[in-house]
Amino acid sequence: MADGTARRRPGRRPGLTDTRGEIIAAASKVFADKGFDKATIRGIAREAGVDPALVHHYFSTKEGIFVAALRLPADPSTALPLILQGPREQIGERLVRFILTLTANAEAREPVLALVRSAATNEQAVLMVREFLTRAILDRVVEMLGVSRLRMEVAFAQMFGVIMLRYVLRVEPLASVEIEELVELLAPTIQRYLGEE
Amino acid sequence: MADGTARRRPGRRPGLTDTRGEIIAAASKVFADKGFDKATIRGIAREAGVDPALVHHYFSTKEGIFVAALRLPADPSTALPLILQGPREQIGERLVRFILTLTANAEAREPVLALVRSAATNEQAVLMVREFLTRAILDRVVEMLGVSRLRMEVAFAQMFGVIMLRYVLRVEPLASVEIEELVELLAPTIQRYLGEE
Repeated sequence: MADGTARRRPGRRPGLTDTRGEIIAAASKVFADKGFDKATIRGIAREAGVDPALVHHYFSTKEGIFVAALRLPADPSTALPLILQGPREQIGERLVRFILTLTANAEAREPVLALVRSAATNEQAVLMVREFLTRAILDRVVEMLGVSRLRMEVAFAQMFGVIMLRYVLRVEPLASVEIEELVELLAPTIQRYLGEE
Repeated sequence: MADGTARRRPGRRPGLTDTRGEIIAAASKVFADKGFDKATIRGIAREAGVDPALVHHYFSTKEGIFVAALRLPADPSTALPLILQGPREQIGERLVRFILTLTANAEAREPVLALVRSAATNEQAVLMVREFLTRAILDRVVEMLGVSRLRMEVAFAQMFGVIMLRYVLRVEPLASVEIEELVELLAPTIQRYLGEE
């Protein structure tokens, strides 16, 4: 990334380096240390030894940096509006099918499971995961659908539990049943939580 | 435990020792190594260097040893029949209230969370947890209620997800809402999964 390198602050050794990769490494450290809410683009730039404008050049938002740093399979700021639009009476079905289809792909699933693993064992990771989950997913769905936070959280808990039993504990038949059979069973639950304001 | 010591196999140093504690330590190792299904009372006795009859004297079943070794707050073989009996149309409410009340106690909750933490990060623990969950809880409820395994598993997933969000991620308001408000929200879900054969 030659143009990135050219704009690097003085004091760092010159040469062709992976500036985007360095920003991501710096961001991983800052998010782990400070959580999501207290991390700033300015702080990430400082940690990476680059100008904040360069961070903005690669990532338009703090959320975008988080998604890239943790290799998450979808950016909630673009994915959620797509999933949530459409008939309200099918919101449960759309959400369940989206989550099960996304996590059926091992490459997409693995970074999410890695995040859960770190939160299960590390209090600093708990803060980071809770804040990102709150800002990037829960707040957004609550605002778009006009449901209560508690309803959104128990809906999330249902799908989180299913993913854990399917892919971490691997309990049968849940671990190998077809997506559509799970949609049939789970969509009415999510619909009941999120279907009405 | 003088009578335990008297019956110890030759070759172990004599004296007053905590035989029950030694059996539990041996059982923890055997369950971690072999999982729940392949562990045997005979194998646990061998690991502890005691006679199998002595293991039976302290613990009547392999499940009882597991519950004691992992300091679980309830033995499913005695707790489940109590919770599951009563009107079928209130099974969801009874199960949700029982699980939330049990886990509201930090001392009861902590060993369960420790088990989840180990399963989140350790493949050997996954085997042990999956097998115990299957034999001690899922198989039993499926048999008593005559529901499908898949329905039982998604019901379990709902409650598992709620406990994780409430006590590990500690997302608000789920982390501090009153039990009865959660019962109102969750009982119809569990009732839908388990209410009919």
